[in-house]
Amino acid sequence: MNIELKENEKIEDLQCNGLKIIQNKKWFCFGMDAVLLTNYCDIKNNSIVVDLGTGTGIIPILLSGKRNYSKAYAIEIQEEVAEMARRSVMLNNLQDKIEVLNIDLKDVLNYLQPNSFDAVISNPPYKLNNSGIINPSDKKAISRHEIMCSLEDVISKASSLLKQYGRFYMVHRPDRLADIMCLLRKYRLEPKQIRFVHPRAAEKPNMILIRASKNGNPELKFDPPLYIYGEDGKYTKDVYDIYQCKATHIQ
Amino acid sequence: MNIELKENEKIEDLQCNGLKIIQNKKWFCFGMDAVLLTNYCDIKNNSIVVDLGTGTGIIPILLSGKRNYSKAYAIEIQEEVAEMARRSVMLNNLQDKIEVLNIDLKDVLNYLQPNSFDAVISNPPYKLNNSGIINPSDKKAISRHEIMCSLEDVISKASSLLKQYGRFYMVHRPDRLADIMCLLRKYRLEPKQIRFVHPRAAEKPNMILIRASKNGNPELKFDPPLYIYGEDGKYTKDVYDIYQCKATHIQ
Repeated sequence: MNIELKENEKIEDLQCNGLKIIQNKKWFCFGMDAVLLTNYCDIKNNSIVVDLGTGTGIIPILLSGKRNYSKAYAIEIQEEVAEMARRSVMLNNLQDKIEVLNIDLKDVLNYLQPNSFDAVISNPPYKLNNSGIINPSDKKAISRHEIMCSLEDVISKASSLLKQYGRFYMVHRPDRLADIMCLLRKYRLEPKQIRFVHPRAAEKPNMILIRASKNGNPELKFDPPLYIYGEDGKYTKDVYDIYQCKATHIQ
Repeated sequence: MNIELKENEKIEDLQCNGLKIIQNKKWFCFGMDAVLLTNYCDIKNNSIVVDLGTGTGIIPILLSGKRNYSKAYAIEIQEEVAEMARRSVMLNNLQDKIEVLNIDLKDVLNYLQPNSFDAVISNPPYKLNNSGIINPSDKKAISRHEIMCSLEDVISKASSLLKQYGRFYMVHRPDRLADIMCLLRKYRLEPKQIRFVHPRAAEKPNMILIRASKNGNPELKFDPPLYIYGEDGKYTKDVYDIYQCKATHIQ
């Protein structure tokens, strides 16, 4: 399909079944966190999923190459970003599978049925909105800081959308671990599986991958840590396999 | 000092300033977790501390070789275990520094002043008391399972004992991470520092070391992970240094 590119846009090859994505160099570009989160999502065949804060659309697009879900609703509050994500969906001919909704995730229950989704995924803004005045038209800031939605908004809406034992997948920062655990429990999303991502084996973690289950029983399993770089300064085999679209989910 | 040993008892050298401890081979013996927790305790000079569930007395005894605290109250519910800990205190001539209280930690506020301690330390029973009928006279079971006290008892009493910004140090199991975080916050003990301990770098963690601050602001820092064994199958330098009493606390 011939898709028009706008100023500052480029097309990236996702190295996975020929999937591609449009990014705007001036806006927030997807990072390794979105790729690792997508790989962490153990989504069953024919699942119906929601991505809260889809940005470029990276998660549902990349997930289509890794898992056999039937439908994804990709929520994005920023109009121009949602429009770009829609063009990426068309670029991959995924219009039947991915629907981009340009709405505020806090209003998601006006558009989607509660208690009806198999999985909810989110790579939300990580930073608390306590760093002074941020320009609300700043697309990068909206993607990074809790300006338009808080962690509690994300978790509460995820819980409302999921069916019984539906799965919530999220990537976040370790320094928010206490907030994450307490908010998940507050909204009856029981933490079931967690993986810490470290730049190197000797360094503290800088990312958390987490799976929670709606109304699940308390039983938290840790995965082995994921190290990004080896002692040789190169990507570890784990990361290389994920980027080559070879990796399967850790069980 | 000449201390009488009872049946099944032996004296162990703690490899730290000549400190020794009495253990009963049939009861719960202290493990690496107690040693790592003691090393993790960054206790200021002249602090007054409480150890909730002291067992053999390992934590206040070993801590006396690592930190310059002024007084420790060591709480132990099991009469014979408390009596053995008292003999270990005498063996090290620490009677002026360590007072063993043979009480239920749930009653600790009948004996010690609330809001008055600089630090509370605990290596509590890890396992939920949901594994059927356990013989309540089984000393190992009482040390391992939440029979006589729950995690919530430990955390709530720690909070009551601590002064403003007093420090709570605990070692526990990763599978209780959500319980730990939520209970700490429930009792206004804000998680401030955490270290995961892994048997080896490629393996999931099997211990958590945590520091919380009474009424502290949310700001959780991760330490680099601690690996017990290196690729050569031997203790890592970190662990070796801790056991040789050389290690200083990670900051």
